[in-house]
Amino acid sequence: MNTTGRFFRCTTFGESHGRAIGAVVDGCPAGIEFSDEDVMPLMERRRPGKSPLSTPRSETDQVEILSGVFEGVTTGTPVAMIIRNENFRSGDYDELKDIFRPGHADYTYQKKYGIRDYRGGGRSSGRETAGRVMAGALAMKLLRCEGITVDGRILEIHGETDPAIFEEAILSAKRSGDSVGGIVEVSVKGCPAGLGDPVFGKLDASLAAAMMSIGAVRGVEIGDGFLSAGALGSENNDCMDESGFLSNHCGGILGGISNGSEIVVRIAVKPTPSIEMEQKTVDVSGSERTISVGGRHDPCIVPRIVVVAECMAALVLADAFLSQKISRI
Amino acid sequence: MNTTGRFFRCTTFGESHGRAIGAVVDGCPAGIEFSDEDVMPLMERRRPGKSPLSTPRSETDQVEILSGVFEGVTTGTPVAMIIRNENFRSGDYDELKDIFRPGHADYTYQKKYGIRDYRGGGRSSGRETAGRVMAGALAMKLLRCEGITVDGRILEIHGETDPAIFEEAILSAKRSGDSVGGIVEVSVKGCPAGLGDPVFGKLDASLAAAMMSIGAVRGVEIGDGFLSAGALGSENNDCMDESGFLSNHCGGILGGISNGSEIVVRIAVKPTPSIEMEQKTVDVSGSERTISVGGRHDPCIVPRIVVVAECMAALVLADAFLSQKISRI
Amino acid sequence: MNTTGRFFRCTTFGESHGRAIGAVVDGCPAGIEFSDEDVMPLMERRRPGKSPLSTPRSETDQVEILSGVFEGVTTGTPVAMIIRNENFRSGDYDELKDIFRPGHADYTYQKKYGIRDYRGGGRSSGRETAGRVMAGALAMKLLRCEGITVDGRILEIHGETDPAIFEEAILSAKRSGDSVGGIVEVSVKGCPAGLGDPVFGKLDASLAAAMMSIGAVRGVEIGDGFLSAGALGSENNDCMDESGFLSNHCGGILGGISNGSEIVVRIAVKPTPSIEMEQKTVDVSGSERTISVGGRHDPCIVPRIVVVAECMAALVLADAFLSQKISRI
Amino acid sequence: MNTTGRFFRCTTFGESHGRAIGAVVDGCPAGIEFSDEDVMPLMERRRPGKSPLSTPRSETDQVEILSGVFEGVTTGTPVAMIIRNENFRSGDYDELKDIFRPGHADYTYQKKYGIRDYRGGGRSSGRETAGRVMAGALAMKLLRCEGITVDGRILEIHGETDPAIFEEAILSAKRSGDSVGGIVEVSVKGCPAGLGDPVFGKLDASLAAAMMSIGAVRGVEIGDGFLSAGALGSENNDCMDESGFLSNHCGGILGGISNGSEIVVRIAVKPTPSIEMEQKTVDVSGSERTISVGGRHDPCIVPRIVVVAECMAALVLADAFLSQKISRI
Repeated sequence: MNTTGRFFRCTTFGESHGRAIGAVVDGCPAGIEFSDEDVMPLMERRRPGKSPLSTPRSETDQVEILSGVFEGVTTGTPVAMIIRNENFRSGDYDELKDIFRPGHADYTYQKKYGIRDYRGGGRSSGRETAGRVMAGALAMKLLRCEGITVDGRILEIHGETDPAIFEEAILSAKRSGDSVGGIVEVSVKGCPAGLGDPVFGKLDASLAAAMMSIGAVRGVEIGDGFLSAGALGSENNDCMDESGFLSNHCGGILGGISNGSEIVVRIAVKPTPSIEMEQKTVDVSGSERTISVGGRHDPCIVPRIVVVAECMAALVLADAFLSQKISRI
Repeated sequence: MNTTGRFFRCTTFGESHGRAIGAVVDGCPAGIEFSDEDVMPLMERRRPGKSPLSTPRSETDQVEILSGVFEGVTTGTPVAMIIRNENFRSGDYDELKDIFRPGHADYTYQKKYGIRDYRGGGRSSGRETAGRVMAGALAMKLLRCEGITVDGRILEIHGETDPAIFEEAILSAKRSGDSVGGIVEVSVKGCPAGLGDPVFGKLDASLAAAMMSIGAVRGVEIGDGFLSAGALGSENNDCMDESGFLSNHCGGILGGISNGSEIVVRIAVKPTPSIEMEQKTVDVSGSERTISVGGRHDPCIVPRIVVVAECMAALVLADAFLSQKISRI
Repeated sequence: MNTTGRFFRCTTFGESHGRAIGAVVDGCPAGIEFSDEDVMPLMERRRPGKSPLSTPRSETDQVEILSGVFEGVTTGTPVAMIIRNENFRSGDYDELKDIFRPGHADYTYQKKYGIRDYRGGGRSSGRETAGRVMAGALAMKLLRCEGITVDGRILEIHGETDPAIFEEAILSAKRSGDSVGGIVEVSVKGCPAGLGDPVFGKLDASLAAAMMSIGAVRGVEIGDGFLSAGALGSENNDCMDESGFLSNHCGGILGGISNGSEIVVRIAVKPTPSIEMEQKTVDVSGSERTISVGGRHDPCIVPRIVVVAECMAALVLADAFLSQKISRI
Repeated sequence: MNTTGRFFRCTTFGESHGRAIGAVVDGCPAGIEFSDEDVMPLMERRRPGKSPLSTPRSETDQVEILSGVFEGVTTGTPVAMIIRNENFRSGDYDELKDIFRPGHADYTYQKKYGIRDYRGGGRSSGRETAGRVMAGALAMKLLRCEGITVDGRILEIHGETDPAIFEEAILSAKRSGDSVGGIVEVSVKGCPAGLGDPVFGKLDASLAAAMMSIGAVRGVEIGDGFLSAGALGSENNDCMDESGFLSNHCGGILGGISNGSEIVVRIAVKPTPSIEMEQKTVDVSGSERTISVGGRHDPCIVPRIVVVAECMAALVLADAFLSQKISRI
């Protein structure tokens, strides 16, 4: 359940306020140049505390590669990576020990396991995505060897589509003790036709699972997505001539397999559930309580989620790339 | 790649115009009453040729249970089921041998495998979903033992939300030699809190993959979905009092785990790519061609996809239900 | 649990006296010529009723390929195959309904599932191996494309090593209402160095699991096997010169990866548990009973197990071959 | 390939002379008391440098639990554990950079990956088993909650069966610059009937794979094992009366499922391939060389392998235990 991929397999571990967050990639081919310098720029994009728009929790998040790389090159054995959790002021969380924060996984983890690491959300914290970024950085290195690149960008914040207004939309919510969400688009360029597998291994199905596995994501669409539900067949089909496809309504994926066009995925990111405004909730015993979640929280997770979404796409593509290599005799 | 699920594992096989379509379910617990009478009503809902709205291809689709059931009860061994393909007029498809139909998987399968069963789309045909329905029927039996039910309904056809207009919207497209899509909602009632697993095994991630693996689906959302991207945190959070959750913006899933509320999933279904209107395309040699796809095709796949979406949801829930049984000592 | 392999994935299904026995192979590369004529000679070698040495149950076991092959060539989609169970005189088994046959899985299936298909052992019957032979035949076709061949032979029957005595050893046991076992060796020729994966995916570990998964097998050894436990390091190591390895104590596998030498596996096959001699046992209620297992049973399963062991080796090798193709960038 | 288990999933990572050796267990139920104090006694039994019989490499091997345990109890999230490699005198290995040690995986890793971490065998080193012991310790904790215990012992060293002679047999080989192997037996007590799955998930098949995945193991047998190949059916069957089974030739497993008797597995361990005596080999360029492997090596790995074999058995049993919980409705 903490592993994704069939060939390029990524397992993540670690809690927000445990000793470390990490990832193990099993199935990475030998021969890829890789070092912590490939990971750190991505970690930096994910890192909190960089601006007034995100949580002031300051972390260096220095990645340590524990295995699988010898003299700067992958050896075909598992690549394990960790970052230490240095700045855990877990005393901050004592008051949350017995109370369920609205919009968080506190209630459901308690119901499922009968126990939960309440410090900062434990395993369900956004900090878990650091492991995905480590593994995603390796996937991106593999893809780059094949000329495939993955890029993400913000399309909307709280309904606003003008990037110049994004910062004000976030700060305005923060001033009210509230939070906002948005929409992110990830595109994959340079992907050849033929990646993805039939039926349950469809490239779009894998992308959908990968994206929806990011905590704050509530919707995923490929190409025209929900818009295509209102289109005519004659509008939605991508016709071809000798130069290739004449449009890309399908977002680069037909029948679950890449067609050589740009792959386009969009995700809906909900507003951060941690807000200062008072909300009704209950505690572990079921008694009614009110809660105002202070502390170090992002008023909008969207800017930091872009790199995580890119990494998830990279993991899916790396897996599909390996699968493709064994699809014909 | 043709298997879904970790515990309740469903593998499907079969091509549109091969000898049979089937499914094998491995991991179904012993002790569930099951017979072809549990499958046939679902197969009937999926079956084409029932009305002017769908393809006139007539199939009886009698399910044969080959294994895993003894004296009407599952034994814990694999349950294999097949239907025979009786009505395969494969001569219909000779003209499609060398040409790529727009919006179909013809081009991508050819690129991936260097060979494809061109008869009616082969493995990428919507007929493949019959295997999912067989397996889904068994999943639904398991869920029913636990009081969990799965229901689907059409929300929109070609942008129309009034069910009284659905039929006319479809027939109008058909008259123009065109096709339409729509939006379907699946809801799960009676699901206890605690189903779903952290990180990559999230219930919503599994549902997203399951739904997106249906050929015509282009988008998936949970609860408020894309709407939540424009909401404030204070609007989107589901608060609680002693009676439970006061709203259900999250669609019954928090942190990837069910919270006991109704689970709500919506999918965007694209218009059927097979249309009579002439379209530009190329053939296997890359030369430009025009194509008008006649034959037995649905002008709208939405009505028949509802039961398939229900079955996919049932497969995911059955898997999560088994997983939950081993999550605590 | 009824699936083996990570890349070349084989799922089997079916009970001894159910409707059919079958296999689905998912992950077989496209482009392999395959028809029932590739399977039938292997099925014939496995088939009972050929001589006084084996059970008189007569079955034609005509294999039907249901999917995944188009115009005589694999398409990359799942290859499903079945044989029908025609000769099921299940009335033969009514007396076994409530009693546990010594040496069989009757007792353990009942304890595990609370229900069992008692007709001829149900899923635990040797007839289940027919599914493995179907899948194994496809694996062998793949291997042959790469110049790899798999062969098995009997080394011992009831301690006798002279093949001229094998038949008499079996008939002698049969006359006493008893049964015998033996030792089978499978060798793989033409396998290049580099197949197999580190740690838990070792080629010898996979072969051991594959062989031990055959019901009657009680021991597995690679190369010198148990003999090497008594050897000195200087005797057991395989030294090299410019021409290659100078000996093959390791049976072609070092560190879990093939070294290019012949791969050698030996298995210990227990005597058939079904014997006419009276034995003490209990029934479902726990009461003591005596049992004499008449009916159509082999006094020695060894001759028929050879092809099954070859097929299991072929499945493991096919899987390792695909894995090798993605081990380097 | 570096993961074992379907439910209680253990992934190991790390090279002999890399930064760390570790394991991640995903799927461990919540609610098990666990700390490094549960691991250290097992690590101590595996640890080198304790006596003249084993390598003088001295390591403290302090286990650090990085995740998945909160306030001393497992939370249901992945349990990651590492030990640091402190004593890596990798200069020791420079002379082995280009040469293939006989009996080691040097040659096969080079052929497979085109690159290898030559320091002390890298991933193929026996030091890799430290990760298995960490995970095995957690499996043992789970089993103990259910009253199941796992114990191993040495049956033979270099053909000697008298324990009083074991030490001398090893020292004698060491004095000659040679090495010896032996036979180890692992038994599982307290295991209820019903663990293990049909066909490819048989308990004995999983045990065989688990044991053969230990580098030095060349053979595995269950119960009477190879002896049963020479027995009569009437001798080999385990009859029953009202008190239960009257013998245990089957080693506690029938049809791949535990029958409630003691489970008995034996493994053949080859002599350590690293010996001081001169041996012929080749280097990376294929030129002939002679080699004498000095350094810190065990003249016999058998004493240290016992705890590793116990841990592998524990991992298999823990997995089967979880599987059993979902085998019936």
